[in-house]
Amino acid sequence: MKVQEPSFTFLRACKRLPVDYTPIWFMRQAGRYMAEYRKIREKYTLLEICAIPELATQVTLQPINSFGFDAAILFADILLPLVPMGINLEFAAGEGPVIHNPVRTATDVDQLRRINSHDDLAHVLKAVQLISSELAGKTPLIGFAGAPFTLASYLIEGGPSKNFLKTKGLMVEQPQVWEKLMNLLADVVADFLLAQIGAGAQAIQLFDSWAGSALSPDDYKQYALPYSQKIFNNICQAGVPTIHFSVGAGTYLPLIKEAGGDVIGLDWRTPIDWGRNILGTEVAVQGNLDPAALFAPKNILKRKIQKILDLADNRPGHIFNLGHGILPTTPVDNVKATVEMVHELSQRKI
Amino acid sequence: MKVQEPSFTFLRACKRLPVDYTPIWFMRQAGRYMAEYRKIREKYTLLEICAIPELATQVTLQPINSFGFDAAILFADILLPLVPMGINLEFAAGEGPVIHNPVRTATDVDQLRRINSHDDLAHVLKAVQLISSELAGKTPLIGFAGAPFTLASYLIEGGPSKNFLKTKGLMVEQPQVWEKLMNLLADVVADFLLAQIGAGAQAIQLFDSWAGSALSPDDYKQYALPYSQKIFNNICQAGVPTIHFSVGAGTYLPLIKEAGGDVIGLDWRTPIDWGRNILGTEVAVQGNLDPAALFAPKNILKRKIQKILDLADNRPGHIFNLGHGILPTTPVDNVKATVEMVHELSQRKI
Repeated sequence: MKVQEPSFTFLRACKRLPVDYTPIWFMRQAGRYMAEYRKIREKYTLLEICAIPELATQVTLQPINSFGFDAAILFADILLPLVPMGINLEFAAGEGPVIHNPVRTATDVDQLRRINSHDDLAHVLKAVQLISSELAGKTPLIGFAGAPFTLASYLIEGGPSKNFLKTKGLMVEQPQVWEKLMNLLADVVADFLLAQIGAGAQAIQLFDSWAGSALSPDDYKQYALPYSQKIFNNICQAGVPTIHFSVGAGTYLPLIKEAGGDVIGLDWRTPIDWGRNILGTEVAVQGNLDPAALFAPKNILKRKIQKILDLADNRPGHIFNLGHGILPTTPVDNVKATVEMVHELSQRKI
Repeated sequence: MKVQEPSFTFLRACKRLPVDYTPIWFMRQAGRYMAEYRKIREKYTLLEICAIPELATQVTLQPINSFGFDAAILFADILLPLVPMGINLEFAAGEGPVIHNPVRTATDVDQLRRINSHDDLAHVLKAVQLISSELAGKTPLIGFAGAPFTLASYLIEGGPSKNFLKTKGLMVEQPQVWEKLMNLLADVVADFLLAQIGAGAQAIQLFDSWAGSALSPDDYKQYALPYSQKIFNNICQAGVPTIHFSVGAGTYLPLIKEAGGDVIGLDWRTPIDWGRNILGTEVAVQGNLDPAALFAPKNILKRKIQKILDLADNRPGHIFNLGHGILPTTPVDNVKATVEMVHELSQRKI
């Protein structure tokens, strides 16, 4: 039996198949920089938007309709699965997420619920279904989740952290508690991603936002890699492309690749050619415009886009993206211009 | 004429000469984690300690006397030279440095004073003299300064920054203003470092704390490297070892080397062997214990120290250090233990 080749440019690029132009999407492409989103946020909190499938759908589609990205990504938050697990989560204005009952002991870990996505995250899966049917035949939808290390660090620190002292403390001083927590998170995340795929997501991205800033490659290998790897191993049965993204991963790219992913996301500190030299040709790469470049005048923005396309060299397996999430004050005009420029500048000559 | 070889282990390691054991010092080794320092801070602000040579001397010597580090580093702040240049600097409690008159236009840059270290930073140079005479024959003293990019980012943002939007904006949109500012900072820093060497500093370190987190290697090469390089070129006449440190520099180590430095500081995300593979044998390396490792139980701490020493492989040209500054709440016991363990575990077999 011959597996049918995907027709969407984004999905073809994930599989390193030839494409007519380089596909583009942005991490956090639905969000605060768009007036349409801010209007909805006047009435609803972030968690409310995530909880109401119709709103999540509306917000997810905004950047697709406005800018013509080659993929949509579910509007959600990596911390959502933690709520039914028993976490008291709040997005405090200006402070980011706050977890009022952080997880720091064996007892805390034992009290976390092993959720079932179909029951406990039904609202998210409903949003995936709605979005998929809206987009059907037009644009593929990316589902996503946070990687175990990043989720664990939020759980343990109680919010964002600079030095991850509590996380690293638990990790090295209570290795069995750490292992139990990380295995639980890996199981929950794999189940959640499979459920998103079942509901219509045509690709998934695993965000390990903090691992690269926090851990030495040695610690990553011991304390984080096995659990991300477990997720990739579990979801490969679903047959959709998987993207693995971590910030500041330049020096541990070989380990990111080892953990898994058909596509490896690169931040703007890791040039495409440097990344490819380390990763080899068996994976695609995604990235990596500095999100700050979107604030520059168009001629400079264009030069920076061209530079990335030059390094990617029209070889199969490149998806254009930012090197990190789009910033809240980004000028909308430049987002539109970037999508157009990437499409135009990467047009393959016949 | 044969140049005499240095006798201090730290200085020998900087020059990649054989040593009996691996020398060790810590970035921010004088500071808040020490009770003796906190006692002085009850009576004086950080800027007052820097301004009173006797206090700066006392604080600089505290970790030398308590832990036996192989090098002292002047107690000062990278922002000190900005004050006589015309900057209104304050260290606000809990917020880090605040610059009340940030530099954002051509006029702002024109108004900055081209200071003369001997006159305008006499108090710092006096501290260097005092410390040098206290340490004479016992421990070498490291002088230091901030690199132009890091200083410019503080000047432009008005304090620490997450996304460096204003800095990157000025950099790409007003390249002539940027060049003027960066050249001025390079001249001031080179003059200041030469003056510190003249006052008795036996090595210097250039801290480019933010370049690695902020810039793509391409932007670093264009907008930061030339000015750091200018400093290294200007101070090489003094003949003392130079150390170049940046955080998150894994993917642009070749450029850090190109900018200059006899020793390249590595953070804990760049393993010693990875760094050496890229840097080659013409420079020494410094680093790179995760500052969070100092919070671990001693057996784990020892394992992590051993791992770094194993990667350094007793080859000439390794100085043990943290991968970033020591954290304020670090347990003092583990600092002492680390110095002892590094000395003991690295003892060269005869």
